[in-house]
Amino acid sequence: MAPWRFERRDPGPTDVRIRVEFCGVCHSDLHFVRGEWGPIKYPQIPGHEIIGRVVAVGDAVTKFRQGDTVGVGCLVDSCRTCASCGEGLEQYCENGHTQTYGGIEKETGRPTQGGYSSEIVVDERFVLRVPDGMDLASAAPLLCAGITTYSPLRQWKVGPGSRVGVVGLGGLGHMAVKLARAMGAHVTLFTTSPNKAEDATRLGASQVVVSKDAAAMKAARNSLDVILDTVSAPHDLEPLLATLKRDGTLVLLGGAPTPHSSPSAFSFIMGRKRMAGSLIGGLPETQEMLDFCAQHGIGSDIELIPVQRIDEAYERMLRSDVKYRFVLDMSTLAG
Amino acid sequence: MAPWRFERRDPGPTDVRIRVEFCGVCHSDLHFVRGEWGPIKYPQIPGHEIIGRVVAVGDAVTKFRQGDTVGVGCLVDSCRTCASCGEGLEQYCENGHTQTYGGIEKETGRPTQGGYSSEIVVDERFVLRVPDGMDLASAAPLLCAGITTYSPLRQWKVGPGSRVGVVGLGGLGHMAVKLARAMGAHVTLFTTSPNKAEDATRLGASQVVVSKDAAAMKAARNSLDVILDTVSAPHDLEPLLATLKRDGTLVLLGGAPTPHSSPSAFSFIMGRKRMAGSLIGGLPETQEMLDFCAQHGIGSDIELIPVQRIDEAYERMLRSDVKYRFVLDMSTLAG
Repeated sequence: MAPWRFERRDPGPTDVRIRVEFCGVCHSDLHFVRGEWGPIKYPQIPGHEIIGRVVAVGDAVTKFRQGDTVGVGCLVDSCRTCASCGEGLEQYCENGHTQTYGGIEKETGRPTQGGYSSEIVVDERFVLRVPDGMDLASAAPLLCAGITTYSPLRQWKVGPGSRVGVVGLGGLGHMAVKLARAMGAHVTLFTTSPNKAEDATRLGASQVVVSKDAAAMKAARNSLDVILDTVSAPHDLEPLLATLKRDGTLVLLGGAPTPHSSPSAFSFIMGRKRMAGSLIGGLPETQEMLDFCAQHGIGSDIELIPVQRIDEAYERMLRSDVKYRFVLDMSTLAG
Repeated sequence: MAPWRFERRDPGPTDVRIRVEFCGVCHSDLHFVRGEWGPIKYPQIPGHEIIGRVVAVGDAVTKFRQGDTVGVGCLVDSCRTCASCGEGLEQYCENGHTQTYGGIEKETGRPTQGGYSSEIVVDERFVLRVPDGMDLASAAPLLCAGITTYSPLRQWKVGPGSRVGVVGLGGLGHMAVKLARAMGAHVTLFTTSPNKAEDATRLGASQVVVSKDAAAMKAARNSLDVILDTVSAPHDLEPLLATLKRDGTLVLLGGAPTPHSSPSAFSFIMGRKRMAGSLIGGLPETQEMLDFCAQHGIGSDIELIPVQRIDEAYERMLRSDVKYRFVLDMSTLAG
């Protein structure tokens, strides 16, 4: 990765110009820049966990003023007219949303460029208000890892007394544990690494099940209402379905490059169980999530690094050697 | 298959003694008696789509009187005390329900024997009232094929304006089409056999998609709220998931002996789609289904046969050569 100088579009009447202060480093960035999700046109700037400060607003902007602390997540545009957009579910825009990087900017026809940069220009609909008092660096990963786990917890009505499973303790998993616990749930972490137990407990898990331990998996049968599966490597879903109660739901959040092994139809039929997917969250729910995190004092556990160490960070992410998210301090980007 | 003389248990205080008049012939019967679902102890009498007349009731029976027309489905007992039983979801009894045949009768410790017989003794909780005016022979398959398709339609809130897909036009599928249509849904039948189109339309489908026709499948994308998949042979679920709208649900009803091919996680994530299972229905919902069918004049399309032709019926079922359910006329059983 190397510095590249480019100009953002001229802000239109509803645009907000933001100086980027922090940008989280998501696994998606890595998959994307390596071309693992399809061919890409370089130069390409990744980054969709953006926290910054408003430096200018267009004439028609009503929600933000210069100096406001704001966030930008995975989306910077959508058709704004389809049923999904009408419901504030821009991530499921029926005419295709515009991703923060790797999309096509409608105003210019150029590729969108992400948050590993000094500034970004975004329509106010796609800008989030960052509540006062949040630690800004650890808030950055909320814009992707936070909302990706918050949305399915709300969708599947997790609340006090719910029993929630979380599969995998990485960037998404550690947020899922914190958020589910803050909603009042009893949280069970499934991991292949027994040495993650202590950290899981610290983050809010009441129970840790090592998924290779058949006896422990058997003891967990019929115990959970919802499982958030954050693991993108293909794995066996059938033992996880067995830990759901009747009418329980296994939610897939990880975009596995090849399918997971196929569970038997009986795993669904017996106990009327469900498997579902969930993709980040819409703008209103992302705002709700930020407000929830501010209220409960929740941020991501992060390692703050200067931009010069991004290649090293990618290497360490490939080894899962990060607790639990790298965040770039964008003030280290030389003007 | 051969005649076998045996005695039913002496009716207890809450038992109902029923003279069997009609019994549907379900694919499960075939799988079961051939030992395809595990080893069985012969002699074994199958049959769980039973319509008959009450000939005697125990002292404590309150719901039925001698002479009533009644039904018995797939279950004849359950623990009656767990949370599922408390909610009238006896099919998901946490301590194990007792199937109408191939189970163990608690009162005697003997195997339960099904409805291909002259009489059956069942606790009144597991007996259904057959509304006046129903055609009794074509009502018999409602006790399994009817409730198996009715329950997920209710569970996933199908009503006027819903867009429902049905995969496969057999015993279950033809009931799914009739019931979804009667609930006010627009019904799309997926079939591998173009020659089933005419019959599907007659039964209530508004649209028929030949699932091998890639262009037709593509045209059906993002169009359905709920799909009931009645096919038990392993097949590819991904093209079906693609026909669901956002938040749509694919419900598996067929107990495939080996898993279906595994869909990509992205098939669920993009559009927040769901896959679920469903197993018959509980007693209260089965009664509701019978009442609904009586109100809407719905029965199964059947071929009524004497018991002497059961082996021939099984052979024809193996070739899917029945429209759409064989029903045994039990008056043909020599005393």
